[in-house]
Amino acid sequence: MIEIDPAHAHLAAPLADALGAVERRFETQLVSEFPAVSDLCEHVSRYRGKMLRPTMTLLSGIAAARGDASILERDALVRLAAVVEMIHMATLVHDDVLDEADDRRGGRTVNRLRGNETAVMLGDYLISNAFHLAATIGDAGLTVKLGEITNTLCEGELIQLHHREDLGLDFPTYLEVIRRKTAALVGGCGRLGALVAGGDERTCEALGRFGEELGIAFQVRDDILDLDGNADEVGKTLGRDLAKGKLTLPVILLLDTAPPDRFERVVHAFESHDSELLLELLRESDGMDRALAFARERVDAGVAAIDGLDLGGTESLLRDLAASVITRSR
Amino acid sequence: MIEIDPAHAHLAAPLADALGAVERRFETQLVSEFPAVSDLCEHVSRYRGKMLRPTMTLLSGIAAARGDASILERDALVRLAAVVEMIHMATLVHDDVLDEADDRRGGRTVNRLRGNETAVMLGDYLISNAFHLAATIGDAGLTVKLGEITNTLCEGELIQLHHREDLGLDFPTYLEVIRRKTAALVGGCGRLGALVAGGDERTCEALGRFGEELGIAFQVRDDILDLDGNADEVGKTLGRDLAKGKLTLPVILLLDTAPPDRFERVVHAFESHDSELLLELLRESDGMDRALAFARERVDAGVAAIDGLDLGGTESLLRDLAASVITRSR
Repeated sequence: MIEIDPAHAHLAAPLADALGAVERRFETQLVSEFPAVSDLCEHVSRYRGKMLRPTMTLLSGIAAARGDASILERDALVRLAAVVEMIHMATLVHDDVLDEADDRRGGRTVNRLRGNETAVMLGDYLISNAFHLAATIGDAGLTVKLGEITNTLCEGELIQLHHREDLGLDFPTYLEVIRRKTAALVGGCGRLGALVAGGDERTCEALGRFGEELGIAFQVRDDILDLDGNADEVGKTLGRDLAKGKLTLPVILLLDTAPPDRFERVVHAFESHDSELLLELLRESDGMDRALAFARERVDAGVAAIDGLDLGGTESLLRDLAASVITRSR
Repeated sequence: MIEIDPAHAHLAAPLADALGAVERRFETQLVSEFPAVSDLCEHVSRYRGKMLRPTMTLLSGIAAARGDASILERDALVRLAAVVEMIHMATLVHDDVLDEADDRRGGRTVNRLRGNETAVMLGDYLISNAFHLAATIGDAGLTVKLGEITNTLCEGELIQLHHREDLGLDFPTYLEVIRRKTAALVGGCGRLGALVAGGDERTCEALGRFGEELGIAFQVRDDILDLDGNADEVGKTLGRDLAKGKLTLPVILLLDTAPPDRFERVVHAFESHDSELLLELLRESDGMDRALAFARERVDAGVAAIDGLDLGGTESLLRDLAASVITRSR
């Protein structure tokens, strides 16, 4: 997810090692004696891309340990990082069912290859394994917090489904949805990563806020890429939001300031799922720019949340991670 | 699930109270400030029927406490019973998506009423809440065991999906599937119910075995009801297994002994999903009787597993529960 600048070269190797350990833990957790199961898990492990959530978890752990990278040797931290990635993978597999998507990370989705039924059950298997692995950390309180996060995440998805094809979806409701469906987990990576590393309450809270703000920015960037990205770079079918009647921030902001004639054309584009017309209207307006400006504000708010803490020199790494959420093209 | 005979009248009221407490815990756990979520949970709570899993959990708790019904006041036991029911409800909601089913407990399924997407996400919300509630019991080891059970359950479902439309599915593989998808959870109710009640290892293990055998018998009875039940009594669409290409025990046993001409007709009925023909062929043979005999053997094996233990007089209640698994018509 991030390039590590020379000033933090000493963190690059331990972080890369720990991400490798997260991948191995992810794979060993999902091992099954049944090829019908293990083949599917192998397919899903190809979905792994940016590793935002494990990176956030591990970096928050180092930050809470005031820059001491040896904290990455703590097995609980590696397990937690694998757990959050597994939860994320489960949401991808089920989202692809919800969206009837064909492509993911440049390959076929499980639902496309093996049918919706298998994709539903594979997602369940990932959720189940995530909680199993989380519980093996041995701290019931941590699993309670993780359960709160996934409850919140599912609520966000259910509210979003409730508002499909709803042009009346307003900005506060949109924000509530993305706070829940995306920001809660990324925030959880910051908060729980710091907690497992032994961070004090103020540090855990600040890194949690940092993650939440990044999560919101990340989702807004995702919304923009779905409208205006390069399909090869993004690696998945674009225009999914419009195809499934999801109103996203650029369109909400476009509607917000559109004069009556343009408003009608946007309504028409949305209702008829006409992505070309919608993109044309967006490019004529400032909806996309305002959405991006909003994402930048959230990144700034996230960086402000960790201001004044002693994070042992990891501050600039966290700022780089924050910036990459906006600059990414995939 | 069971009628309590007069010899155990003193257990009837505490058990009914505890089941009431389980229902309340189930509902309070799923409360959401969002009507889009809480309306769905209310709908799902209507799916509750036999309460086999909570009953098994609570009864195993009393049995492990040598008949002391005051163990039911232990909040952890009530929570655990709500957790296993929630996991079961999640599997029903997702199974209905997998089976494209329209009816459940005499009402419409969530997928039929609100679409597959909402049903997928609601099932996820139930799984998430089940683990959240389990973790609040405060025993990480218990949540690990629960995670092992749900991992096993999902594996069973995935193996079953892998064998859809597979006439070559043999008896050992069938048994492996139902052990995992059904018996693991019912066995877990026995084992973990006893554990939370402070049972010793031998008692927990025996009640776990008891539950597993009942789970197998329960699933075989389910398979038979799906072929030969009364739809009004069963409360759901029948013939689902055949419609989704699931080979079940009566048909496996029918194929096992069929002379060549009947074998061909069974293959034809299975491949063309012709439920009338399949039922006719089953009734001409002893496939159904042999499946039922197998279920009875499992019930006997379950009862034998708890033989010789001091369960404080709950033995006959457990035997009644075991018998009801076979005699039920819904």
